Amino acid sequence: MNPDPGPRPRGRPRAVDGDQVLAAVLGVFWEKGLSGASLDELAAAAGVSRPSLYAALGDKRAMYLAAVDRVGDVVAAEISATFVADRPLAIALAGFFDAAITAYVAGAAPRGCLIMCTAPAEALSEPLVGNALARVIASIDAGFEQRYRLATSRGELDSARDPALLAQQTTAILQSLALRARAGTAESALRSLATASVGLLLAG
Amino acid sequence: MNPDPGPRPRGRPRAVDGDQVLAAVLGVFWEKGLSGASLDELAAAAGVSRPSLYAALGDKRAMYLAAVDRVGDVVAAEISATFVADRPLAIALAGFFDAAITAYVAGAAPRGCLIMCTAPAEALSEPLVGNALARVIASIDAGFEQRYRLATSRGELDSARDPALLAQQTTAILQSLALRARAGTAESALRSLATASVGLLLAG
Repeated sequence: MNPDPGPRPRGRPRAVDGDQVLAAVLGVFWEKGLSGASLDELAAAAGVSRPSLYAALGDKRAMYLAAVDRVGDVVAAEISATFVADRPLAIALAGFFDAAITAYVAGAAPRGCLIMCTAPAEALSEPLVGNALARVIASIDAGFEQRYRLATSRGELDSARDPALLAQQTTAILQSLALRARAGTAESALRSLATASVGLLLAG
Repeated sequence: MNPDPGPRPRGRPRAVDGDQVLAAVLGVFWEKGLSGASLDELAAAAGVSRPSLYAALGDKRAMYLAAVDRVGDVVAAEISATFVADRPLAIALAGFFDAAITAYVAGAAPRGCLIMCTAPAEALSEPLVGNALARVIASIDAGFEQRYRLATSRGELDSARDPALLAQQTTAILQSLALRARAGTAESALRSLATASVGLLLAG
């Protein structure tokens, strides 16, 4: 954005790449949530000083909200992938759940979804976190609903089905997979639940 | 348990009723989670000193786990209520979701489920919390599965349906209602999702 920021004033924190720092701190929030993550852990994960971290991303809450936004973008991109031409609805939905489970069980200990597993705990004491959680849930619902409307127009889905409610039920399966992964459910059991749920959602 | 504990040693915290204290601190954990709740808030909610609180329930983690156990018992009792004789499966399931939603939206701000909304955040950094979360999810799944097996034996449910997977999908709807309530979804929207989901689960 600014290729020549000029000489750095002495005593100011060294400028760091906000995107890289965000990627680094995201893992700490994913594992520990907002309250559970300390500034020292966040700075250590990013490999920068606390003042540099603060300068790049703001306070801990602002960092957490930026992490939620980033994960929300990834989920939105995965839902967009279910719109790829010529993929039948059942295949697209199964692919979505597969990608989600793969993300949920990645890492040393399966962490589920950063948003669904850590934002609810803070949603009441931190209204901005509650708003972000509501926004992400609504966005996932809306993405699925749009895909179901397309399916209805293509004749892939019975026109008597309510796309909005079906979308919320699809999100419910996703949320359950996230919570179950976090609770240590075996990956094979998560995949069985996902497969059975594609059948339930599209046959109901 | 012990009607005559004898004279209380001086300097020791005053003995308090553990059950009453647990009921009082449960609301704090429900709103703020384990990391977010401070010992001062917990003691203030219970109306006792921090040493008395500690003597009654142990440290903060032990208090939180006791709160999870208590809520788990309530959920198990609600599932048992779906077994009441002569209640058709659809009515029983609708009644279960209705009671859950009523609990989720009670209070000044809708709080969802203490377990599903606050335990996941701590599940990785506090293995005992992770175990408790897994135990409660498994117990809810098992309760629904037992009810579905009864339904199959009564001819209320197609014997081709897998009771274990159907139970997990039922828990998924419950988890979603909890997260959505916590995110501020209107009660009427929660009830619409529950009603539609009884239809989906039992018709699928």
